[in-house]
Amino acid sequence: MTTGHVFIATSLDGFVARPDHRLDWLLKRDSTGEDHGYDRFIAGMDGLVMGRTSFEKVLSFDPWPYSLPVTVMSRSLDQASIPEPLRDSVQLSRQTPEDLMHSLGERGCRRVYVDGGLLVQSFLRAGLIAEMTVTLIPVLIGEGRRLFGPTDRDIDLELVDTRRFASGMVQIHYRVAA
Amino acid sequence: MTTGHVFIATSLDGFVARPDHRLDWLLKRDSTGEDHGYDRFIAGMDGLVMGRTSFEKVLSFDPWPYSLPVTVMSRSLDQASIPEPLRDSVQLSRQTPEDLMHSLGERGCRRVYVDGGLLVQSFLRAGLIAEMTVTLIPVLIGEGRRLFGPTDRDIDLELVDTRRFASGMVQIHYRVAA
Repeated sequence: MTTGHVFIATSLDGFVARPDHRLDWLLKRDSTGEDHGYDRFIAGMDGLVMGRTSFEKVLSFDPWPYSLPVTVMSRSLDQASIPEPLRDSVQLSRQTPEDLMHSLGERGCRRVYVDGGLLVQSFLRAGLIAEMTVTLIPVLIGEGRRLFGPTDRDIDLELVDTRRFASGMVQIHYRVAA
Repeated sequence: MTTGHVFIATSLDGFVARPDHRLDWLLKRDSTGEDHGYDRFIAGMDGLVMGRTSFEKVLSFDPWPYSLPVTVMSRSLDQASIPEPLRDSVQLSRQTPEDLMHSLGERGCRRVYVDGGLLVQSFLRAGLIAEMTVTLIPVLIGEGRRLFGPTDRDIDLELVDTRRFASGMVQIHYRVAA
């Protein structure tokens, strides 16, 4: 079965971005040269799934930062929204999370990096997340885009590991109970 | 100066209680006999401040669990709301957080345990919290009473310590930057 994996940073009060999607509160604390394990995480993934908002954010970066095949889940984007040089590595999907994971599995994609607050929420609700590495940034920003949202049940987590960094970041690795 | 100190448990998604104030998700994970340091924390405090909701919850416990002098911040309760046996150790206050801390200071109360989500939020906004020990419970409950709320600025935190427990709880001790 194809499993979803989360590697994400959040303010202590649970936000992944400000209301206008800005990440200044995160980026200014992420410039210490600390190795938070992102490269090692990515090396264990076969693909990446993100939403439209994340895609549009990442498009503003130059160069395109991913070597993994990327799926953008969006009902509003079409093929023309994808810049020509990315058309081999980025695909659009209007499937449900369940159907998308099934399709990815058929293409040999076993471990999928699920990125972005809303996508993490919908994949958690669908029971498609196997593990989460959450890095808590030592700041309260008060409002913004939340990492977690409503669930239809309690979702139990198993603690795998914790790491603390000189920057004050605390990284917690959970397995999501089946 | 009198300082506020927080020692509180929250689900990973940031809730201190369910919408109806139930703590079942917490209590069922807190029965492992682990020492989370609560007694040591309490031993360093001179007083306790809570809101009406917490007070009414604690009144349902028998016996009354606190030896510290308790201040209940409430605009709706009056002296008759306090059971006779508690009238020496529980006082009501309609002051602002700033004024209350000033009054407590005049009575020699230097370190005050601030309990309950709404109170933590208002004391944080007023710059009255010096440190927070947050214990993350390994569960997502999806909705409830939040630990943190809106702020009028970013509130920087300094990591002091982390502890992990066999139960999967992760305790993080922060100093609140001045």
